[in-house]
Amino acid sequence: MECILLGTGGMMPMPARLLTSLAVRLGGRCYLFDAGEGVQLGAKRTHLGIGGLAVVAITHLHADHCLGLPGLLMLRAQMDNPGPLTILGPPGISRFVQQNREVLGFHINYPVHIVEWQVNGTDVAYQDHQVRIRWRPVKHTRFCLGFRLEEVERPGKFHPEPARQLRVPEGPLWGRLQRGETIRLSAGEVITPGQVLGPPRRGRHVSFVVDTRPCQVLHDLCQDVDIAFIEGMFLPEDSRHADAKGHLTVVEAAEIASRAGVRRAVLVHISPRYGEDDLPLLERAAKQQFDLAEMGRDFARYTVCYEWTVNSER
Amino acid sequence: MECILLGTGGMMPMPARLLTSLAVRLGGRCYLFDAGEGVQLGAKRTHLGIGGLAVVAITHLHADHCLGLPGLLMLRAQMDNPGPLTILGPPGISRFVQQNREVLGFHINYPVHIVEWQVNGTDVAYQDHQVRIRWRPVKHTRFCLGFRLEEVERPGKFHPEPARQLRVPEGPLWGRLQRGETIRLSAGEVITPGQVLGPPRRGRHVSFVVDTRPCQVLHDLCQDVDIAFIEGMFLPEDSRHADAKGHLTVVEAAEIASRAGVRRAVLVHISPRYGEDDLPLLERAAKQQFDLAEMGRDFARYTVCYEWTVNSER
Repeated sequence: MECILLGTGGMMPMPARLLTSLAVRLGGRCYLFDAGEGVQLGAKRTHLGIGGLAVVAITHLHADHCLGLPGLLMLRAQMDNPGPLTILGPPGISRFVQQNREVLGFHINYPVHIVEWQVNGTDVAYQDHQVRIRWRPVKHTRFCLGFRLEEVERPGKFHPEPARQLRVPEGPLWGRLQRGETIRLSAGEVITPGQVLGPPRRGRHVSFVVDTRPCQVLHDLCQDVDIAFIEGMFLPEDSRHADAKGHLTVVEAAEIASRAGVRRAVLVHISPRYGEDDLPLLERAAKQQFDLAEMGRDFARYTVCYEWTVNSER
Repeated sequence: MECILLGTGGMMPMPARLLTSLAVRLGGRCYLFDAGEGVQLGAKRTHLGIGGLAVVAITHLHADHCLGLPGLLMLRAQMDNPGPLTILGPPGISRFVQQNREVLGFHINYPVHIVEWQVNGTDVAYQDHQVRIRWRPVKHTRFCLGFRLEEVERPGKFHPEPARQLRVPEGPLWGRLQRGETIRLSAGEVITPGQVLGPPRRGRHVSFVVDTRPCQVLHDLCQDVDIAFIEGMFLPEDSRHADAKGHLTVVEAAEIASRAGVRRAVLVHISPRYGEDDLPLLERAAKQQFDLAEMGRDFARYTVCYEWTVNSER
């Protein structure tokens, strides 16, 4: 599993900092979180295979989070036979996409499935053979969603002793049980994975929460994730802006990450008021609160391993 | 008068080539032609004063020409008291802007005046104290407009002899006549500029035509302009794409410029299939047809003087 930041900025695209967007790649598929103006540029700079794009999850209908969506849909339409695409987003996302498709008259050569958040709906927005994506409303000036991507559980640890006792011959049948399959022995006996495997093991979890004030939902979305991408828009001394406009300071972000026990926190959606030279300042303020917090950088890649995270180069 | 290319690409924004957009600056005002995704990036890279933006002219409702408009409107709303803004475009541009304003719920703190092209309408889309902008439908796969910006005529050359004969005392009154004002002498006699000035002198003209096949309208829009920004999307050997998708090759563009007698032709809306290294190839092909043609470069500036054009550095 690899997380790639296509951008780390908030409010408007800047030459040195594109708008915040996170791609999570796993098994040839790509799950994208937010798509502001210029997201195509980040996709190209990071050599993101747009063909494998399976899901685009939009936090909210502010332009810096969704205006890149039409261009992304069109870019993908230039491939031969791209697979279906699911768009997750707040109420209104469907109208936004449909209206722009209609007015701009663009052609899409693949099925698009749009899922809007609903009151009293399930908190699982999407599920495929690899991951499920949860969503919950956060606390912004406009209705806004936070996301948590969870890799589906892996089968538990294989225990050879019970397998031998059940007379499963060592070899391919062990492998099938290990992968979670039920098998039948030549004598006719059926063996289920539960007889030889430990409890299912948790997959890797990633959270993406931006454009919000602190709230309990953030804690739930971030709890025990392997890597959390959290808004860290302002320095604590600029907290009045965070408060007025529904954003997080780096210290608030780090505090949420710390309390939720995330294994690594990457702060994104950085205000355009801070230049590249200011990033160490922001990072220092965050780290004072939580040592595992750091500022995100455009085009940075994070390899998420089981129980730990490795930073690859940009 | 200064022309600034915020981008020179066609179809999709690229890290090394943003989408084609032209800013014409004159007397503190800015007239912008096309605004694709990422136009804010080009505006920032060229330090374009967005506050002075008076007009955004959109050629057509393909995403690579208009999807940057909502972001531009919002960027401008972050200034204190920006002046009114006029948007010129094809039928549907108003719906595109209004729908996005509505769905994205963004605030605009200045009057926006949207003018849609109409059948049987005038060919003057806009006029202020400095310029008029003409528009004409060109020949694309979708309804598309070409533009010509014309600086208003300057008063004619001042002739001292008739002024002396009319007993206008040398000094401030000469200046007022020179500027085109009617004056009254102390003896009560009224003198009009026409009595002492030659015929009005033409202002500077700039044309902007992209996304079109060759047609007579291009000739009219480009005729005798000081500088023409013309689509040169393909090499002649790729002309089948130009033909199929309603675009111009560099050779067609140069031929139009040559026949229309433009003083300088800058080719833009370059296909993403060509890298930076290919540009000399495209330029060579264009120059074989018309020596005053050249390929545009992102962030290049062109100072348009009366009767001639100077290239400033990027």
